[in-house]
Amino acid sequence: MAAVTALNKFRNFSEWFDKLVLDARIVDDRFPVKGFAVYLENGSFILRRLRNLLEEELEATGHKEMQFPLVTTDELFGREAQHIKGFMAEVFTIESAGNTKLERKLIIRPTSETIMYPMFKLWIRSHADLPLMVYQSNNVYRYETKATRPLFRVREIPWNEAHTVHATASEAEDQVKKAVEIYRKVLDKVCIGYLILRRPDFDKFAGAKYSIAFDAWTPDGRVNQVGTVHNLGKNFSKVFEIEFESKDGKRENPYQLCYGFGYSRVLAAIIAQHGDDRGLVLPSEVAPTQVVIIPIYFKGQEQTILDYARRVAENLKPLRVFVDERDDMTPGEKFYRWEMLGAPVRVEVGPREVSENKATVFRRDTLEKEQVDFETLNSYVKELLRKIDSNLSQRSKRIMEQMITDITDLQKGREEISARKILRVEWCGKTDCAEKLKEAVGGEIRGTLYDITEIPTGSCIVCQQQAREVVYVARAY
Amino acid sequence: MAAVTALNKFRNFSEWFDKLVLDARIVDDRFPVKGFAVYLENGSFILRRLRNLLEEELEATGHKEMQFPLVTTDELFGREAQHIKGFMAEVFTIESAGNTKLERKLIIRPTSETIMYPMFKLWIRSHADLPLMVYQSNNVYRYETKATRPLFRVREIPWNEAHTVHATASEAEDQVKKAVEIYRKVLDKVCIGYLILRRPDFDKFAGAKYSIAFDAWTPDGRVNQVGTVHNLGKNFSKVFEIEFESKDGKRENPYQLCYGFGYSRVLAAIIAQHGDDRGLVLPSEVAPTQVVIIPIYFKGQEQTILDYARRVAENLKPLRVFVDERDDMTPGEKFYRWEMLGAPVRVEVGPREVSENKATVFRRDTLEKEQVDFETLNSYVKELLRKIDSNLSQRSKRIMEQMITDITDLQKGREEISARKILRVEWCGKTDCAEKLKEAVGGEIRGTLYDITEIPTGSCIVCQQQAREVVYVARAY
Repeated sequence: MAAVTALNKFRNFSEWFDKLVLDARIVDDRFPVKGFAVYLENGSFILRRLRNLLEEELEATGHKEMQFPLVTTDELFGREAQHIKGFMAEVFTIESAGNTKLERKLIIRPTSETIMYPMFKLWIRSHADLPLMVYQSNNVYRYETKATRPLFRVREIPWNEAHTVHATASEAEDQVKKAVEIYRKVLDKVCIGYLILRRPDFDKFAGAKYSIAFDAWTPDGRVNQVGTVHNLGKNFSKVFEIEFESKDGKRENPYQLCYGFGYSRVLAAIIAQHGDDRGLVLPSEVAPTQVVIIPIYFKGQEQTILDYARRVAENLKPLRVFVDERDDMTPGEKFYRWEMLGAPVRVEVGPREVSENKATVFRRDTLEKEQVDFETLNSYVKELLRKIDSNLSQRSKRIMEQMITDITDLQKGREEISARKILRVEWCGKTDCAEKLKEAVGGEIRGTLYDITEIPTGSCIVCQQQAREVVYVARAY
Repeated sequence: MAAVTALNKFRNFSEWFDKLVLDARIVDDRFPVKGFAVYLENGSFILRRLRNLLEEELEATGHKEMQFPLVTTDELFGREAQHIKGFMAEVFTIESAGNTKLERKLIIRPTSETIMYPMFKLWIRSHADLPLMVYQSNNVYRYETKATRPLFRVREIPWNEAHTVHATASEAEDQVKKAVEIYRKVLDKVCIGYLILRRPDFDKFAGAKYSIAFDAWTPDGRVNQVGTVHNLGKNFSKVFEIEFESKDGKRENPYQLCYGFGYSRVLAAIIAQHGDDRGLVLPSEVAPTQVVIIPIYFKGQEQTILDYARRVAENLKPLRVFVDERDDMTPGEKFYRWEMLGAPVRVEVGPREVSENKATVFRRDTLEKEQVDFETLNSYVKELLRKIDSNLSQRSKRIMEQMITDITDLQKGREEISARKILRVEWCGKTDCAEKLKEAVGGEIRGTLYDITEIPTGSCIVCQQQAREVVYVARAY
């Protein structure tokens, strides 16, 4: 097995990533249907943790879990004109079953608006039924025609979609803020760096009034959309005939939101942003093994050292601790393996640690080692996990800030995109200029900052007329 | 809303069940694609709990979670001759995507052998890679041509499938026993009554050497298969070319098992077996609300009573407790509602309870009430939940025993099947007699007891030749 160490993520991102996800038991992309991958035990574990982290937040903020079907019908799928226009080219369809043609073909969900909303129509009668807030973790299916890449761009997409219904426009607006906070909280727990952007109108979700998106950086200078929050206004409630009786007795269409959190995209960001030449570096919240303990066997003292290693493991509970007791590998081979797997903390115990009642603690992020007394080990390691997370967060944010560069010239813009930068430019707001910009620099307008208002002071980078927005431009997955 | 009380599950099972699952927010079957239902918040909660209960056992016994694709290819699906024969008539196929015909059609999993095993071939090299034990909770899709019924017979089936690979036949045999124990443990936690049967050869899983199945009873006298364990022998490892190098250096095909646990079927059994004329009766492990607290408001004392109710709730943590504070419903309406929802314990607190520092505790299974001191309430309720579970288990097993009747005569058999009985008969073992039996009595042979050897003493109920097996006969979902 060639070492990941032969590769550097900033210089050879694709090779580094593809090799690492298989070696570290995240994903196996060799299944013979393009874009459909197998999530191995470590990938599955992290996806599960992400799901738990998000669902806890959703439950705590009043969302209820429901499970909706995989399929919708032609008729339902076609109701919202923009929606079908946006998704028609990428849906898988089922036309037969058991060797016989179905009477009506079925459309596999690319997202679940057209599956959930006919049910919402049945459930909503009065303002007392609102807000309705449901979520579902599922897979959606999109016939991606670009080259696929494990986790980043796949045809079977594990995600969470939440859908809410509100009596008033202002409640819907409030919910946009709340949804953004939920996603921010979860992304911050896994220490990734991202921009929260309001997408330009031409790039909003098909059927939405407007869309907010979380774009995480990648080492090859692209952005990776990990989550989106869409304010749908009444676009869907009108065509799905969802109505409620308001407090003053009128029949009205409610306001709706949908928001999606891409589990595999977040996993991709965790790997891409934190990993290094040795392999994965996992934040503590999602690491399958938070602390690996390596007994350094010494002839004649094997049992004493192993017993001590197990005592250290007991001491560290309830952290996710694993003692690597294997006797057919050298400590060095184990170090190599566990560094690749990204365990945030390694504890080494050999004859010296046993005799001094200590442990040698290695942190994966900085590769530093320290000797710690057995008595203080538990609190030391817990604190160290917090420090590692904090360091990963800061490093990730710093790298992102360094990637962003202010540009006022198209030629310079093209050079910086090639140099793996995210551009910050001023733009007049016209779609025509956005298209020219994309053509000229090789990156696309991703939007304006959501939570900070940046006031343009100059002219549009394309047409030189007065700029209306400060926008971020990047290549995207 | 018509009361469930108008219906009795033993007399009108279908109507009782269909009405209850909607009223109690388990399932909404009005989605416009047949066999694809929506799991509402209470149904989703219970499915989640079942999933957690099962997955904890699987993890504790060495299984690892992995996520495999939804689809397989024609070629893979067709490799095992019996398997494709058994499933071909009921698979959904994807032939186009984005309005264009796919080069190769895709088959949606009716189960995942043909998706997982090509990957197993890549992963398994030597005996050191064995046993391989993986599981996945997912939905499988089967084009059921019989009438569908929510939870029992659907086309989108939420389940867990585990797949294991072993070096020797005896390890595979051991794993059958372990898998049976895992399922038994989980089914016992939700207090349902079932038979564990070894299926007759003509009814084993398509591609298996033999199949063990868990059949739960239903009030209409059918059986409901909630789980199955299949010993696949080398049938699949040969055609999928899975090989390992044994300890003595030979290349061999390993032995395989697969086992499936039907979450929606188990949920159906919980509802059908424990429910009564008032609605659901939920065992404590899966109840969304284990204890509901109803303040009995009395004019002028509303706040005092509410405060006390909240203190009672605090006292009962970490149980899943809910205080129904609504002031637009009478206590009687709330009783009615929560009895329908199946909360195992209800606590009523009114002026008298406040003044005497007590609570009135109602148990859903027997409808009995008792006054309990505030100080002992927590331990009382915990113990009561155990008693309720134990009572549900015993009642369910007793009803099942009463449903089983020994039959030696076909005419009498037909009468008993009509009277909602499960028949125990002696059989010669010939498929021909099994077919005649089915024709004659209207029920099918489900198999022989797995864990008790019943020795036949007479002659085959059909051909009158010497019987070889004692088998159970029933109509099945």
